[in-house]
Amino acid sequence: MALAYDPLFITSDKSAMDVPSTPPPMMLTQDELKRIAAHKAVDFVESGMVLGLGTGSTAKHAVARIGELLRQGKLSNIVGIPTSKKTQEQALSLGIPLSDLDAHPVIDLSIDGADEVDPHLNLVKGRGGSLLREKMIEGASKKFVVIVDESKMVKHIGGSKLALPVEIVPFCWKFTAEKLRELMDGYGCEAKLRLGGEKGKAFVTDNGNYIVDMYLEKDMGDLGAVSDAILRLPGVVEHGMFLDMASTVIVAGELGVKIKNKHSSCC
Amino acid sequence: MALAYDPLFITSDKSAMDVPSTPPPMMLTQDELKRIAAHKAVDFVESGMVLGLGTGSTAKHAVARIGELLRQGKLSNIVGIPTSKKTQEQALSLGIPLSDLDAHPVIDLSIDGADEVDPHLNLVKGRGGSLLREKMIEGASKKFVVIVDESKMVKHIGGSKLALPVEIVPFCWKFTAEKLRELMDGYGCEAKLRLGGEKGKAFVTDNGNYIVDMYLEKDMGDLGAVSDAILRLPGVVEHGMFLDMASTVIVAGELGVKIKNKHSSCC
Repeated sequence: MALAYDPLFITSDKSAMDVPSTPPPMMLTQDELKRIAAHKAVDFVESGMVLGLGTGSTAKHAVARIGELLRQGKLSNIVGIPTSKKTQEQALSLGIPLSDLDAHPVIDLSIDGADEVDPHLNLVKGRGGSLLREKMIEGASKKFVVIVDESKMVKHIGGSKLALPVEIVPFCWKFTAEKLRELMDGYGCEAKLRLGGEKGKAFVTDNGNYIVDMYLEKDMGDLGAVSDAILRLPGVVEHGMFLDMASTVIVAGELGVKIKNKHSSCC
Repeated sequence: MALAYDPLFITSDKSAMDVPSTPPPMMLTQDELKRIAAHKAVDFVESGMVLGLGTGSTAKHAVARIGELLRQGKLSNIVGIPTSKKTQEQALSLGIPLSDLDAHPVIDLSIDGADEVDPHLNLVKGRGGSLLREKMIEGASKKFVVIVDESKMVKHIGGSKLALPVEIVPFCWKFTAEKLRELMDGYGCEAKLRLGGEKGKAFVTDNGNYIVDMYLEKDMGDLGAVSDAILRLPGVVEHGMFLDMASTVIVAGELGVKIKNKHSSCC
């Protein structure tokens, strides 16, 4: 789609000033904007790469685009590492060769969405429930390109007032949820077990665990210290903060697409 | 058993000098020594307490003793929180009332064995595979009394050259095991998946996870920093280092029983 590469529409915002780029020539739907951002991310893909394939409404456009370029012969010798069963199914249907981290412990490039992005390019992910596999795969990537619409940009992690997910073992989950709430009490925290299983039961992750969604009122400040404190709680498997992991964030908004790069994107 | 309370035999070694206490009046088997240490630990138990019940060859003597004292009417109104299904079965057979962490998030006293104890009373636990539940329960205890035979005393964690166990998610376990080995490479680390499942397959914990056993050649030094680094690896659920958790360690040896208390036991 030619529009995706319209130079008037895409701004490489290396200084990350929050100045709108040149307005688009026409109004586009949010899904079209996501697709434009996803296609821009796929510009980073080269033949022969091992690719981490993200999950969600934006990432699916990137996976589709990779499949399209493979089919057209514009890309070859790609190996995809899917971050979820859903993405695995999509990639297989598109003929993208797949493998896993055991066979490919170093990934050249991952492309995925996020639920929140702060000015330092720290992320919240996992509202879809697959934060652990995403963190394993994206953490093993030389380059990690994040695609979001502008509603995901926040001043600080937790700023959207939506959930920060934490994956915990089912054993005595109430105890662990309460320990999490106590730990984060200073930030105005509410902790809720995620439901969505059969008959209103707990949602169960691909790893057989539960998710506690933490709703925060205040800026946590030192995210590294909070991350370590959460991980120290026995019963916690992983949390949805992806700190210092994104290399590039591509933001699709009503007024255009901006590219924010690590180490030049803050504050 | 009168011998267990022979004042000549038990030394409250609050200064924790590694000086043998008064020799026992007769040679005892290792199992008898373990039982003496376990009974000494049960001296800390009072009626009305919520008790964390450990697992293993030493802890089972403590559980048996608690059952005996309940039956004799010398203890009453005890609630036990078992750290494994095996201990749960033993406690039920003895008529010890049981509950869990969700109902009793604060435990008065836990009694359990350990695989290693260093001079600061840091522990390695989990060679039996139940490190996560033990850490949850013993970490929630106001007082945690550890019972070991003297072979478990080490100069530094890992010093026995037996395994430091790490519980990991099964998803791409080879990747996580290799990340662990790389992380600990400076300490001469070998990382092996624990077997013991059906047909030579991986051992599976109560939480549906795998165990990687790490064999270390060198002193890790700053254990808190190593602990955080291990927990930061996505794919790691918990490790077997119990740092700064034991209040008291009761050591059963050929030459007697010593009691080491936190903050007065080092170095």
